[in-house]
Amino acid sequence: MPFELTRTYIEELRTAIKESDEDWLIREAGELHSADIAEIFDELNLTEAQFVFRLLEKEKASDVIVALEEDVRDKFLDSLSSQEIAENVIESLESDDAADMIGELPDEKQDEVISMLEDLEQASDIVDLLNYEEGTAGALMAKELIAVQEDWNVLTCAKEMRRQGEDIDFVYTVYVVDSAEKLIGTLSVKKLLITPTQVKVRSLYKPSVISVQTSTPQEEVANIMEKYDLVVLPVVDQLGRLVGRITIDDVVDVIKEEADKDYQMASGITQDVESTDSIWVLSRARLPWLLIGLAGGIFGARVIGVYEQDIQLHPEMAYFIPLIAAMGGNVGVQSSAIIVQGLANNTLGLEGMFSKLAKEFGVALLNGLVCSILILGYNLLFSDSLNLSLTVSIALLSVIIVAGLFGTFVPLALDRYKIDPALATGPFITTMNDILGLFIYFWIGRLMYLAV
Amino acid sequence: MPFELTRTYIEELRTAIKESDEDWLIREAGELHSADIAEIFDELNLTEAQFVFRLLEKEKASDVIVALEEDVRDKFLDSLSSQEIAENVIESLESDDAADMIGELPDEKQDEVISMLEDLEQASDIVDLLNYEEGTAGALMAKELIAVQEDWNVLTCAKEMRRQGEDIDFVYTVYVVDSAEKLIGTLSVKKLLITPTQVKVRSLYKPSVISVQTSTPQEEVANIMEKYDLVVLPVVDQLGRLVGRITIDDVVDVIKEEADKDYQMASGITQDVESTDSIWVLSRARLPWLLIGLAGGIFGARVIGVYEQDIQLHPEMAYFIPLIAAMGGNVGVQSSAIIVQGLANNTLGLEGMFSKLAKEFGVALLNGLVCSILILGYNLLFSDSLNLSLTVSIALLSVIIVAGLFGTFVPLALDRYKIDPALATGPFITTMNDILGLFIYFWIGRLMYLAV
Repeated sequence: MPFELTRTYIEELRTAIKESDEDWLIREAGELHSADIAEIFDELNLTEAQFVFRLLEKEKASDVIVALEEDVRDKFLDSLSSQEIAENVIESLESDDAADMIGELPDEKQDEVISMLEDLEQASDIVDLLNYEEGTAGALMAKELIAVQEDWNVLTCAKEMRRQGEDIDFVYTVYVVDSAEKLIGTLSVKKLLITPTQVKVRSLYKPSVISVQTSTPQEEVANIMEKYDLVVLPVVDQLGRLVGRITIDDVVDVIKEEADKDYQMASGITQDVESTDSIWVLSRARLPWLLIGLAGGIFGARVIGVYEQDIQLHPEMAYFIPLIAAMGGNVGVQSSAIIVQGLANNTLGLEGMFSKLAKEFGVALLNGLVCSILILGYNLLFSDSLNLSLTVSIALLSVIIVAGLFGTFVPLALDRYKIDPALATGPFITTMNDILGLFIYFWIGRLMYLAV
Repeated sequence: MPFELTRTYIEELRTAIKESDEDWLIREAGELHSADIAEIFDELNLTEAQFVFRLLEKEKASDVIVALEEDVRDKFLDSLSSQEIAENVIESLESDDAADMIGELPDEKQDEVISMLEDLEQASDIVDLLNYEEGTAGALMAKELIAVQEDWNVLTCAKEMRRQGEDIDFVYTVYVVDSAEKLIGTLSVKKLLITPTQVKVRSLYKPSVISVQTSTPQEEVANIMEKYDLVVLPVVDQLGRLVGRITIDDVVDVIKEEADKDYQMASGITQDVESTDSIWVLSRARLPWLLIGLAGGIFGARVIGVYEQDIQLHPEMAYFIPLIAAMGGNVGVQSSAIIVQGLANNTLGLEGMFSKLAKEFGVALLNGLVCSILILGYNLLFSDSLNLSLTVSIALLSVIIVAGLFGTFVPLALDRYKIDPALATGPFITTMNDILGLFIYFWIGRLMYLAV
């Protein structure tokens, strides 16, 4: 059954560390999964974590480091010498994890650690991987894979696979390449096992294979693996040569990250933060959007200031300021969220911007009518002013329509200019719609009161 | 390279269908992946899709149906007879997909389709799977797996694996069970291949294995697979007997769905909708939160109504209504989003509610001070009323703190009572904080003006 971290367990562990009860700690660590030990490390202080770390077997120790939260890992790696990092952390890792880890180190330490690696092939793989731009398939892939040539026979394949497979934890697929290393297909292990040894790969392999280029953005990689239900995806260079493969576990992390990022944008948080971060980090991540909200509020105050006399004459106009602002904000967030999610999941379909706006107009009109009729009913019952009742309902309908169209348009426009559409959601849309809504409300109000 | 759907391609396809150009269609369908054909089906009308469907090979045809959007699939299955569904869709599917598909049919059709299945083992597996509650590991798992007994020798294993492996697309892991079918460990295929045939499984297998129960919620399944980087996870019943396995591709769907759901909640959308849905569906998904916003707005109007005289005396009080409301809303959404995300990702750490509230107090105080000082500066420069300036700043600071604490408390409290904490986000928090903010603002305003 999965391990569950409790406060009692952490206390027990702390006591064992204080008493240097190495036997108990080694026994416990032997039974725990590296991911659980990483979770425990998040709760310990640096000295305690180091004490436990030095008792771990080499392979488990490096798996623990991979599984740590990034900020905890940075602190931890900082406390180790380059020699220790090279020998106890990097050496037993696959190339993708190794490169990620080294990429997080300060520049000088990176070179030092790489120069201390004993396996020169690993060192060269890591240097290769570090060159790819972050957020691309190249930066996500690992170099370990099994590739066979199309003109080999089954016997040669089996021998080569045993050799290449040594460093690989789990064989997902065997790739087939031509003499120029170009990826041309895949081969099932099952088929290899039941075919006579002299048969050539050429007559056995499946020639179609979905692949991505090293420069493919990671969001697209995630969408492709999700759409085609792939466990592993090969990566080729511009010439079509096989250079690596991406496994689903790394993509799950990307999917989570992307979803978290969009969610945080919609909630007005500018950085990837967690409730366990410090007050300082949390405040800094939240302040930027608050300042935008503040600027919006000042603008709003100016708009209302223009209509000060109207409010003095008809103070009941002020009653519905929050309603108008809130509804505009809500509708804008709703409509932009649907577009942002559609863009992220690649499910927007083939209709163009115009038909999307037309559809949003329909939705906003429908919901706007329902809301304005309800508020009209309320006002006719409870307010003496027919002017106010009509103003509120007409303004509400207009605000809902404008906010809906605006919320649909902005993320589509940002996306067209290659700006992250998620920027449009959350406080940005809310603030813009607040101001727009106030304008509409007071403008219609003045028209209505003038008309009577 | 991945296929990209274009409008031109759809037109070409439509022409081919109109001209009944079966050769061309069969050739195209042979080259396309089932997921791409499914994407094409989303764009075709029912008659067109049926025409193409009947030209597909059986296995591809059923894979296409699995990959369709749920609403398109429902319509499509509706147009097929039970006989056709049993023979052309269900028979070549693995048990989890088959059960999902049948579960979507109307009750009478479910029984009809099941009774028409020729493979009785498949039928029994499907009936078993349909009994598990939706959203649990049982409903997510497939029954196809390879299990060997601990007292078998390697030769028996190899034979049994060949037999059991027939229906399985891809062998992830070999599970080891005892004589009572209890899951006790896993066995690597590599090890089986290099061990003499008379050796017993007992001396070969790895005894520790992470598993879940059939009743484990799917969110927990996703968290476990993500945390331990698993490609496949075995499922046991209450007695610990191995009953199925869950693969990562199904969990990726769960992770996406959960993330999408939280995002939609935060955006005030109550159902899983996409921009390609009808105006009617989109409106219905968005109306509930708008009605809550409407009710909130009416409440807000009542609050302001109480202070009507204050506004008539000091109309400048009205200027900052939108600012106060917006900032309360923004802060509330920020703080609740961090908690909701922490709960979803299981990264809240071990600190209790009190220390979380204390930390949020710190964050809100810091951000609140920055914002109030800025607005104080603005007001001192541009407004003649010291009262107003002080009122706005004090109210803003109070609102930011109250909204932050409220946004932290509500999702934690909901979660404690097993209610989805995401309900707390979006329009709910915004609306509550709007009203709260208005109260605070006018109350402080009255105190300030009275004091002078």
